[in-house]
Amino acid sequence: MQNFEQFLLNNLPQSQSIHPTYESALHNMLKAGGKRFRPALLLGVVKAYNPLLIESAYHGAYAIELLHTYSLIHDDLPAMDNSPLRRGHPTLHVSYDEVTAILVGDALNTYAFEILSEAPFSDETKVKLIKELSSNGGLNGMVLGQAIDCYFENKPLEIEDIKILHTNKTAKLIAASLKMGAIIVAQENIANELYNFGIKLGLLFQIQDDILDVTQSTQEAGKLTNNDEDKNSFVTILGLDKAMSEANLLADELINEMQSFDESLQRELSSMLITYINRHKN
Amino acid sequence: MQNFEQFLLNNLPQSQSIHPTYESALHNMLKAGGKRFRPALLLGVVKAYNPLLIESAYHGAYAIELLHTYSLIHDDLPAMDNSPLRRGHPTLHVSYDEVTAILVGDALNTYAFEILSEAPFSDETKVKLIKELSSNGGLNGMVLGQAIDCYFENKPLEIEDIKILHTNKTAKLIAASLKMGAIIVAQENIANELYNFGIKLGLLFQIQDDILDVTQSTQEAGKLTNNDEDKNSFVTILGLDKAMSEANLLADELINEMQSFDESLQRELSSMLITYINRHKN
Repeated sequence: MQNFEQFLLNNLPQSQSIHPTYESALHNMLKAGGKRFRPALLLGVVKAYNPLLIESAYHGAYAIELLHTYSLIHDDLPAMDNSPLRRGHPTLHVSYDEVTAILVGDALNTYAFEILSEAPFSDETKVKLIKELSSNGGLNGMVLGQAIDCYFENKPLEIEDIKILHTNKTAKLIAASLKMGAIIVAQENIANELYNFGIKLGLLFQIQDDILDVTQSTQEAGKLTNNDEDKNSFVTILGLDKAMSEANLLADELINEMQSFDESLQRELSSMLITYINRHKN
Repeated sequence: MQNFEQFLLNNLPQSQSIHPTYESALHNMLKAGGKRFRPALLLGVVKAYNPLLIESAYHGAYAIELLHTYSLIHDDLPAMDNSPLRRGHPTLHVSYDEVTAILVGDALNTYAFEILSEAPFSDETKVKLIKELSSNGGLNGMVLGQAIDCYFENKPLEIEDIKILHTNKTAKLIAASLKMGAIIVAQENIANELYNFGIKLGLLFQIQDDILDVTQSTQEAGKLTNNDEDKNSFVTILGLDKAMSEANLLADELINEMQSFDESLQRELSSMLITYINRHKN
């Protein structure tokens, strides 16, 4: 059986035309690796409840990775974070140009929904997945988070508003990944519990990123670090020590909540999650 | 019964948050009017075959208008056409800023699929509509067309390649509008015929735009005109006279093809289409 990474590489968007670099630009950031954290969450849930569906579930996982990847490409644009590096590679607007980065982002955004519309699921499941991905990855989710982040650059927010920012910018897509797994295996009784767990996990993830931004070098992170001073990061607002305590607190809560997961779900997700949950401690 | 314009205004994206201008920016270009040509095509088909479905069909028409509107916002960005004016209003990156224009475009792109996933259609119909919109509005459709257009700025193309450019950039979404109408009323026997008609109609539309770009003032057009010199427009490649002949030829073909439409479809679409088909002659 192929793994998800092979599936992704075998299903890169095809587009042959007179444009000499368009297709390679579409592939560039998808092939650049990354942790594939969101796909792993979705696939973990599917494996726990119905391993036979794992290859179909790759389509759902791919759609999430497409949406996540487009958001990275647009976040890195000169008008936004103006980042030269992502996933250890030059960003698209550096390797190609700004027009290409905008259009490739647009294309991957739309392609996520094309992939879901053609996935080997029932129409009912497809529609549920599309609803979940679009509502969490769109104007009242990921995009809103980025809009708040950019608007309030250089304008310090209260901690509660920073949580709103990152719930939207990061946590909702992570939460949706778990919930979409539950939808695929028709375990909708646990969908909301997993979603809420995912929101907390996403917040922890962001606090950790903010911590690593000040403690890791650019080379270790594969993206520009030490560039959050003007941003509403947990570290700039709380300070490193308090951000660490907040991360520890959330980590304990999450490990505690995982105890109530079904055994098969614990088996599939625990070891991966515990590694993530503790990554700020190294 | 409300008309489509009222439906659109009643269903503008809602997003209340600490961001003071995000929601108004989301509304800005949707409220700015425009011809609503693509919605009118979809709704014309629906009205011809099943007028009872017209209010449900507004959801499909709205999704197309969302995708079209996001594409205008991104096409107008400083990195692309750098246009100050659209639909008679200042463009988003002028009224707000570039970040806002990028993010609002992203949000409307995703929202189109959220709207379809929640529309009052069967799941089967929803999936077909999502497939149609994403495949024509995405990486092998509208986005590819814009990529080719930008890449070959200042590099003159052959006329056949210009047709490929505009088939993707403009015609596929127009063709999809007619086909999506046929899907909604379950007249899939005419879906491909309508699609092919729409491709020709879209090409004519583009030739006309290129003609009007040199013959209309900015004020008449509601957008910057006389700015296609570096572009692969039909007029820059063929000259105005030949572009006019090409437009006349296509117009005749389309009027001829319309004769084979079912009577009810002719009744719904003919007068609107004939006005459009002849608009370059004034």
